[in-house]
Amino acid sequence: MPRYFLTIEYDGGPFVGWQRQDNGLSVQEVMERAADTLEEGRHEVYGAGRTDSGVHALAMTAHVDFAKDWPEDVVRDALNHHLRPHPVAVLSARRVSDEVHARFSAIRRGYVYRMIDRRAPLALEAGRAWQVRVPLDAEAMNKAAQCLVGTHDFTTFRDAQCQADSPVKSLDAISIVRHGEVIELKVEAISFLHRQIRSITGSLVEVGRGRWSVDDFRDALEAADRTRCGPVAPPDGLYLAFVRYPAGVVENP
Amino acid sequence: MPRYFLTIEYDGGPFVGWQRQDNGLSVQEVMERAADTLEEGRHEVYGAGRTDSGVHALAMTAHVDFAKDWPEDVVRDALNHHLRPHPVAVLSARRVSDEVHARFSAIRRGYVYRMIDRRAPLALEAGRAWQVRVPLDAEAMNKAAQCLVGTHDFTTFRDAQCQADSPVKSLDAISIVRHGEVIELKVEAISFLHRQIRSITGSLVEVGRGRWSVDDFRDALEAADRTRCGPVAPPDGLYLAFVRYPAGVVENP
Repeated sequence: MPRYFLTIEYDGGPFVGWQRQDNGLSVQEVMERAADTLEEGRHEVYGAGRTDSGVHALAMTAHVDFAKDWPEDVVRDALNHHLRPHPVAVLSARRVSDEVHARFSAIRRGYVYRMIDRRAPLALEAGRAWQVRVPLDAEAMNKAAQCLVGTHDFTTFRDAQCQADSPVKSLDAISIVRHGEVIELKVEAISFLHRQIRSITGSLVEVGRGRWSVDDFRDALEAADRTRCGPVAPPDGLYLAFVRYPAGVVENP
Repeated sequence: MPRYFLTIEYDGGPFVGWQRQDNGLSVQEVMERAADTLEEGRHEVYGAGRTDSGVHALAMTAHVDFAKDWPEDVVRDALNHHLRPHPVAVLSARRVSDEVHARFSAIRRGYVYRMIDRRAPLALEAGRAWQVRVPLDAEAMNKAAQCLVGTHDFTTFRDAQCQADSPVKSLDAISIVRHGEVIELKVEAISFLHRQIRSITGSLVEVGRGRWSVDDFRDALEAADRTRCGPVAPPDGLYLAFVRYPAGVVENP
């Protein structure tokens, strides 16, 4: 069974998330339907991770096995044809060894969270960024965020429903930079807890708007107490930006 | 009658264009309805120019006269409230002298045209950029475009329905730069002919994809012949980016 690695862009707005669910349409389901149309039979599309309802992807990775050895470009173009009219696009399809697994082979994941601080509603970026109606101090947010780097108990910043065995995770890098009215948070780790990034972002916005000091933020992390988390940021601004694999396993996009 | 200058962002997708028309909803109409709700009576909202159906604005300017001397922030926030759920947002409202006219006082207009050259459909940028399915040579496009700078007969690059008295216009600056998969065209002039930018962009894409040489493009301009224009680019990628006024007349946004 030839295995293909897919890089997938999607607008999370109309979906219940990446993962198949009974309560609505998922990105995984429209991907699998497209694969089933390309080649007779049932295909499972394994994603590198889950994204929540409304969360976008610039480059989700996934793998799928086909019976036939289709050319890579045919897989990409045919899947895109069958994905219409859903806002899901296969950016690339690459033949890989069948030992490579989109989720278990991944060594790093990167997300971007976009905020826009202004009074006026978002006419062009509605659903694509979090509109914060007060000015944010991006430098203070960036300063506060640096205490997250390294290995910590992230209980404060994980959803009460999170099913991970442990709240301890390593965060490799985080930065918050302003570009005009857009404040962009970038974060990288091997993996994340459920709603970890939206919990961190919502709490950093408390710093950015001056309600919390940098010390308050560090205290909230160190308390390892979910009730110390700020308001969780909405999904609109969150994008899965990349998933990385060891060199030679699969060419990084 | 206190006069207000408005800076307006909109998604052109659902509209027949800026200008009021009988055949559908225009941005001007939703702006005027919002003004009529803010203050009893009929208000006319004068834009700095027209944009075609589907063309977006990062910063259209317009003026409107109210009977009452409303605070600037009240005008902005109330208009935004009454504009819902249309994808139109008033970024700022400023009190100006009643001699200032959004259209006639303007001294420069700037547009941006966004292209994305890739095979995969646009999941996140659908309606916000022109997807060109073949690779584009942005440097060749930029080189070709430079012959447009200065004063020329732009007959080749204006719509057959254009109502301007003369096809002669001055173009101040044009650049085409690649940022990753996005090719961004920026152009500035006092004013433009009907569909001039989309005609220029469509013809430059012929250069970018290798069908026309840089000389072919210059020959098309110099021919001053509408039949020499390339395929007109779709409205999706076009944004009115700014409108400038003389210093002191109105604070530039």
